[in-house]
Amino acid sequence: MTLKLYVDRMSQPSRAVIIFCKLNGIDFEEIHINLSKRQQLSPEFKEINPMKQVPAIMDGRFKLFESHAILRYLACAFPGIADHWYPADLYKRAKVDSVLDWHHSNLRRGTAGYIFNTVLAPAFGLPLNPQAAAEAKKVLLASLANIESVWLQRKGRFLLGSGQPSIADLSLVCELMELEILDEKDRERIIGPYKRVLKWMDDTKNAMEPHFQEVHVILFKAKEKFQRQRYDVGSSIPQSSRKPEFHSKM
Amino acid sequence: MTLKLYVDRMSQPSRAVIIFCKLNGIDFEEIHINLSKRQQLSPEFKEINPMKQVPAIMDGRFKLFESHAILRYLACAFPGIADHWYPADLYKRAKVDSVLDWHHSNLRRGTAGYIFNTVLAPAFGLPLNPQAAAEAKKVLLASLANIESVWLQRKGRFLLGSGQPSIADLSLVCELMELEILDEKDRERIIGPYKRVLKWMDDTKNAMEPHFQEVHVILFKAKEKFQRQRYDVGSSIPQSSRKPEFHSKM
Repeated sequence: MTLKLYVDRMSQPSRAVIIFCKLNGIDFEEIHINLSKRQQLSPEFKEINPMKQVPAIMDGRFKLFESHAILRYLACAFPGIADHWYPADLYKRAKVDSVLDWHHSNLRRGTAGYIFNTVLAPAFGLPLNPQAAAEAKKVLLASLANIESVWLQRKGRFLLGSGQPSIADLSLVCELMELEILDEKDRERIIGPYKRVLKWMDDTKNAMEPHFQEVHVILFKAKEKFQRQRYDVGSSIPQSSRKPEFHSKM
Repeated sequence: MTLKLYVDRMSQPSRAVIIFCKLNGIDFEEIHINLSKRQQLSPEFKEINPMKQVPAIMDGRFKLFESHAILRYLACAFPGIADHWYPADLYKRAKVDSVLDWHHSNLRRGTAGYIFNTVLAPAFGLPLNPQAAAEAKKVLLASLANIESVWLQRKGRFLLGSGQPSIADLSLVCELMELEILDEKDRERIIGPYKRVLKWMDDTKNAMEPHFQEVHVILFKAKEKFQRQRYDVGSSIPQSSRKPEFHSKM
């Protein structure tokens, strides 16, 4: 039976799971749970994941959710997956687990909170929340500083000084890719100072082509959409204030 | 070389790691990193955990932080640890990982956020924040409902229908024990409706005695302290409004 992935490519942990399967030649059926249509709340999907979140998987009769648990499982369950993804060595594995656990309350919380409260909230019928955005930004900047000075401190292109990516590199870089949908100047101000982070992101993307780019196509389309919205709003307001005579002629 | 635990028993993940070692006969040296004195920020401790958080461990020259990564490591690194703590079976292990990963952005976020913003903030020189408390309470209640109806849905006294506790039971019950420092009526209102959660907490505590109780002594002392503070504040305000004549005599 083919592995089933219940995913929405608009979700960063969904993209991480899809990329992992493609990189490692794992056959899968992609079942789109459209978050913008709230399909994760359907009774059918609740049977797959009672927590109503993507990604989730079904491997035969075995159901699993939480992207890190899924990545760990896939790395161990399928034959021939290279060891660097989730090392069998006790000490190396513990270090990868440490990064994955750290991710939740730090990089994920900062990134997801900042993007939701500066860009995405209106799409969910909620107002932008500058105070929540400011708090999330603090967590995001502290997380970037720690990736730069702790996880990328050692030689080696990847986290923990490794010469090959692990599922932690995949998960964290997919998270940071979300920053693409910010206003470009805002994104540059946030991530620009972290030179090792930028190089590591490039190295990780390059190590995962062509799948990394392909699975992120949907994000780049969303980026364009948000840019157009900003341009439309931005170009109409200044024009109306710069050229009152145009309006007065009407 | 003895395992070194860098912990503060006032931190719930620290308590989980200490209890795990005691239950499993792992010799350790307990090094107190006093959070109320901000010792986690010292240059010496930064050498152990650059993220400046407890718990952290040093096993020979191997350093590790993040409590879930530590519990996974200890369960695998020491001989003779019973399999139920972190099962070797791929499917069972993946399910335990799923609970552990879920914990971070759900039960931990809700519990820690609610307690900080209703009780602890003043001890850190910050005001109580009712809006943040209300948001955290939503996350906490949703998490309790999911433990009740998802993780404890199956037969068996412990999470995932198991007859023996795993490191996920230990971690989540230690988190919920933090609710002890709330006002007793508030705690009862929050957790009282979740009968399976209450029974599971009792079963988990009982399975881990006498170490569970012993390691939580510090929490019960803190509970008393906060109760006295509430009583002092509570008894002075109503008295002054109930008995104005007493003041007028002075």
